[in-house]
Amino acid sequence: MTADNSNSDASPAMKAAVIGLGSMGFGMARSLLRAGFSVAGVDVSADAVARFVASGGRAATTPADAAEGAGTVIAVVVNAAQTEAVLFGENGCAATMQPGSVFVSSATMAPDVARRLAARLEAMGPHYLDAPMSGGAARAEEGKLTMLASGSAAAFEAARPALAAMTATLYELGDEPGQGAAFKMVNQLLAGVHIAAASEAMAFAARQNLDLQKVYDVITASAGNSWMFENRMPHVLAGDYSPKSSVSIFTKDLGIVLDMARSANFPVPLASSALQMFLMTAAAGMAGDDDSSVARVYAQLARLKLPGDVV
Amino acid sequence: MTADNSNSDASPAMKAAVIGLGSMGFGMARSLLRAGFSVAGVDVSADAVARFVASGGRAATTPADAAEGAGTVIAVVVNAAQTEAVLFGENGCAATMQPGSVFVSSATMAPDVARRLAARLEAMGPHYLDAPMSGGAARAEEGKLTMLASGSAAAFEAARPALAAMTATLYELGDEPGQGAAFKMVNQLLAGVHIAAASEAMAFAARQNLDLQKVYDVITASAGNSWMFENRMPHVLAGDYSPKSSVSIFTKDLGIVLDMARSANFPVPLASSALQMFLMTAAAGMAGDDDSSVARVYAQLARLKLPGDVV
Repeated sequence: MTADNSNSDASPAMKAAVIGLGSMGFGMARSLLRAGFSVAGVDVSADAVARFVASGGRAATTPADAAEGAGTVIAVVVNAAQTEAVLFGENGCAATMQPGSVFVSSATMAPDVARRLAARLEAMGPHYLDAPMSGGAARAEEGKLTMLASGSAAAFEAARPALAAMTATLYELGDEPGQGAAFKMVNQLLAGVHIAAASEAMAFAARQNLDLQKVYDVITASAGNSWMFENRMPHVLAGDYSPKSSVSIFTKDLGIVLDMARSANFPVPLASSALQMFLMTAAAGMAGDDDSSVARVYAQLARLKLPGDVV
Repeated sequence: MTADNSNSDASPAMKAAVIGLGSMGFGMARSLLRAGFSVAGVDVSADAVARFVASGGRAATTPADAAEGAGTVIAVVVNAAQTEAVLFGENGCAATMQPGSVFVSSATMAPDVARRLAARLEAMGPHYLDAPMSGGAARAEEGKLTMLASGSAAAFEAARPALAAMTATLYELGDEPGQGAAFKMVNQLLAGVHIAAASEAMAFAARQNLDLQKVYDVITASAGNSWMFENRMPHVLAGDYSPKSSVSIFTKDLGIVLDMARSANFPVPLASSALQMFLMTAAAGMAGDDDSSVARVYAQLARLKLPGDVV
């Protein structure tokens, strides 16, 4: 609304809106700008919007405003409720999106919610691409995210130029919204179990008086390794629990897995145990800390010292 | 006793005994032969012994006989009870091992059992190296195993030529027996949880009607990956549950983890859930099948079809 450093005369195909300019959305918006898109951005944080304008973006005040004239609208918010508000809440973008434009939903959510949001939007004319992502802020900034996407051929076609600007790997996982979400939930089940298991194993090793750096070296070269063990346990070794990804992400995502499983009458005892460990960690006051904090709960229970403990 | 194709005049340092000529022990014995050792082997299977003799080894009838004059005695048996019998049972090798020779124990067992066996043997003169291993039969045959070893400097020194013949990676994890065993149990905790989690995730994906080959492709490229997911889930995709490594290994090893944790008043909820899933799999008649059979239990419970099912 205020500044406009971008080409507002661009065709809809090269006009995008990014709703949510947090660490992920900001990088995605900048990747779009670098690829030549005219990009409108909106965020609750005025600071984030100001930084975005300084990068060459256009500030918008509402999702509806941001989506005006945009061929691709990308929601980079935290969960299903925020995605629904962005679409259909007060000043939601569904009201201003044109038929033929596409809404790209990146939040992790249950497949049935993705299907419901998609059906409601598509009945109004625009397309819906279910496109949860993986990769952190650095990948977002580089335009090298991975997206697990599903939707109609028309939704993919409309979104393709923007997806090309934001991703290094695009999985096309089906022709209906909800399939991308389901793949993401399978990944989150494993990721959550592996963080909890890594934490359990490291604390168990500490209980056995093993050298934890040696444990890391042996495990990462052995059959017990996981992507999460290798990525998260350095935080434990450094005693650094500043959030790269927080405990609250996994209380949310494993909660969705447990809800999906229960409604399908499907038992997931491993995911259930992992969720309980994340809930214990949140209950102990660490919901906003790094997800490797699960290791601290085991250590506190057993009165073990981990690296960095100042007791 | 019968055939002797090897150099029986070799010095003790270049004489080895291998007790247990199964898929692992056979490969290890052949690696020793290739490195110029004179090797005596013993096994309950006459066929295994005959194949060993055909490879240039000497057949022995008992552990005591095999260990006669050997500088290094390697036990490649299944568990602590068999290791104890090999050492101290009828015709056990402790009776014939000379002071200065070394017993290399490769079975996965609880650290306190390793310490007890070591103390008893070392009181008689020989050294004890606690050296559980990782890597399958192919690695054993190539002399490229990984060993997680601990013991006195004298034990390492005595065993070093044989270890060099059998391993690609030798971790030296401490100067007391039991430490190698503890590292191995940390690895087994993770390996067992990861197999159960991989099985849970694949069956959950099937319940969500996802294409399982795509699930494999996405997960192995994502943060939800583990060494075990990548290694075991191809068995599920192929519907091939012939045992590469059987369910019974993990009912045993996770059982040891749970015993260790309980005796240390240490909670391991993830390992506990995983053990229950392996026990369900064994209870359903699959104890001798491939450990990826855990996926079949989830599928059977939920009446899902996995690849290869003929229902």
